[in-house]
Amino acid sequence: MTNLRIPGPTPCPDFVLKEMSRQMINHRGPEFAQILNDVTGNLKKIFRTKNDVITLTASGTGGLEAAVVNMLSPGDKVLVISIGVFGDRFASIARTYGAEVIPLNFEWGKAADVKEIRKVLDNNPAVKAVLVTHNETSTGVTNDLEAISKVVKEFDKLLLIDAVSSMSSINLPVDDWNCDVVVSGSQKGWMVPPGLTMLSVSEKAWQANTQAKMPRFYFDIAKAKSNLEKGQTPWTPAISVVFAMDKALKIMIEEGLENIFARHIRIANMTRQGVKALGLSLFADEKYASNTVTSVSAPEALDVKKLLKLLREEHDIVLGGGQLHLSGKIFRIGHLGFVSEEDIKEVLNKLRIVLPQAGFEVTK
Amino acid sequence: MTNLRIPGPTPCPDFVLKEMSRQMINHRGPEFAQILNDVTGNLKKIFRTKNDVITLTASGTGGLEAAVVNMLSPGDKVLVISIGVFGDRFASIARTYGAEVIPLNFEWGKAADVKEIRKVLDNNPAVKAVLVTHNETSTGVTNDLEAISKVVKEFDKLLLIDAVSSMSSINLPVDDWNCDVVVSGSQKGWMVPPGLTMLSVSEKAWQANTQAKMPRFYFDIAKAKSNLEKGQTPWTPAISVVFAMDKALKIMIEEGLENIFARHIRIANMTRQGVKALGLSLFADEKYASNTVTSVSAPEALDVKKLLKLLREEHDIVLGGGQLHLSGKIFRIGHLGFVSEEDIKEVLNKLRIVLPQAGFEVTK
Repeated sequence: MTNLRIPGPTPCPDFVLKEMSRQMINHRGPEFAQILNDVTGNLKKIFRTKNDVITLTASGTGGLEAAVVNMLSPGDKVLVISIGVFGDRFASIARTYGAEVIPLNFEWGKAADVKEIRKVLDNNPAVKAVLVTHNETSTGVTNDLEAISKVVKEFDKLLLIDAVSSMSSINLPVDDWNCDVVVSGSQKGWMVPPGLTMLSVSEKAWQANTQAKMPRFYFDIAKAKSNLEKGQTPWTPAISVVFAMDKALKIMIEEGLENIFARHIRIANMTRQGVKALGLSLFADEKYASNTVTSVSAPEALDVKKLLKLLREEHDIVLGGGQLHLSGKIFRIGHLGFVSEEDIKEVLNKLRIVLPQAGFEVTK
Repeated sequence: MTNLRIPGPTPCPDFVLKEMSRQMINHRGPEFAQILNDVTGNLKKIFRTKNDVITLTASGTGGLEAAVVNMLSPGDKVLVISIGVFGDRFASIARTYGAEVIPLNFEWGKAADVKEIRKVLDNNPAVKAVLVTHNETSTGVTNDLEAISKVVKEFDKLLLIDAVSSMSSINLPVDDWNCDVVVSGSQKGWMVPPGLTMLSVSEKAWQANTQAKMPRFYFDIAKAKSNLEKGQTPWTPAISVVFAMDKALKIMIEEGLENIFARHIRIANMTRQGVKALGLSLFADEKYASNTVTSVSAPEALDVKKLLKLLREEHDIVLGGGQLHLSGKIFRIGHLGFVSEEDIKEVLNKLRIVLPQAGFEVTK
């Protein structure tokens, strides 16, 4: 079997894939209502929130768009903290719908500096919301969201979070950390195929929603909420992915959230140590290195494209490359969701064989 | 097995469900590129078009939104022809994004009158686009799209079509009928679970796209087109549903489009005759009655809610009720996609048993 080690879509366990092959049911009938209610209840447990959690049929990017268009009006000032591709994407979405974006960009590979955030908020009292990526998939960096939230909430701003590749894998207690909208995606730590995005929505966020004038129809979360009260969705949902999510959530709750986090920490440490033992260095500031994806700097001599091709074609291992200007400069190992020590051991063993073939002599 | 006879989601054949349970692959790798290219090529055959066909991860409503926001600018005048819930929805989407909608509504159960369309276009030279539902799922009526298109094209307007519940089941040759944007959804006649919407986009539509100023990000079809050239999608697609669509398309092409249409006509006729033989009448004007869904008027004495409940709970048959003000007034039998004479025979046989239990004496 392919060892799919990109930071999403992630491999799914057999019990999840089996759910994917269930026959269709009426999405406006009692059976689906029961499943959607179970899913919503269990999502709240993983998000650790009493807030509403809305499930939409779309990728994580659709969820980010939903967060923006349901909370803001054209002309609203927003601070967008970016440490990579997905932070920039969040800013692009906000700009597309007419927000006035104050960008606060940090060097790729580093985490956001909370002092800088405070400074910008101090200088821009009109800021309505702060948009931030929890775990930046493109660089393998996890921001200190707890600290960021503290500052944002000192200034009493709305806090919108891209947690697409962190929620369910990395500690993020939504209510304890005062997060207003938190977005995730089914194909990440949830062990489920792509097709669903899930958002938690705080009371403060619902208040903002009543004032938000950006246009929205498919992604209208107020409509989704009123439908959810009947156990339905406004439009036909990706029923199969809801079946799969229902099953995956039950298994996750059985494993226990703390155990899941511990497993991710353990495997991430193992990945980082293993990569360094090959003589490679981490691209991410190790203090903030992500527990769901490890980015590795490519030494001058290493042909990343060749490395990924050899791993894929000769060893059935799929790693991620770098995105945009990081293409050829880094490669990435995904270790979120359905992942075990064995999976990473295989990656490290095969890297030891393939790295020299792609130009880099393993030195240790 | 449940006889799921709502107008979508429709039952899926086993060979399609099997594809749904395939393990995840890299959505930016060569294997997915091959599948997406195959899917796109085969979609063009079913749409009968040389135009681009774009596949997005969303329900059909998302596809309708994509048609609107990619073609129009706020303030654009559009004629929206509505004969039911989905025509009204198309108008709501256009209004939400700032179009000036000229509504042309016809009595529910009837088809659009082409003479009226001509009149409105004559009186409103500033109209930029005409939005119309091909097959109105809520009432079971199929508009005469060929005739509508002729008029719209006499006036050289952009023609945007909701073919969510017709494309692949009812004759709709996109190029022969000069259709600019045609939207369908995977959970209808395609025999595939919900999660994908597919749009054909004409050359004229791409020209309109370059001028269209409505905001769009997730549903940006120009971005989708440039990604498609690399065998990719801008955001993570619902991979499993793409697998299923790939398989279903191959089987559909094997069956042959003309044979599929003939099967739908045959089964629809059988449904209509069978319903009338029970002493019931059709809600839809029979001249325009849909070949994918039959709407049946509920006689005064009939308790529709009870009828649907009895069918569901005692006979494992799921029919659709009426939507909005048609709730309790009609019920609907879906017969699109994976449907055989046997499925409908069972519905008719069980209706004969259950109708009297729900208050209506079968008279014939």
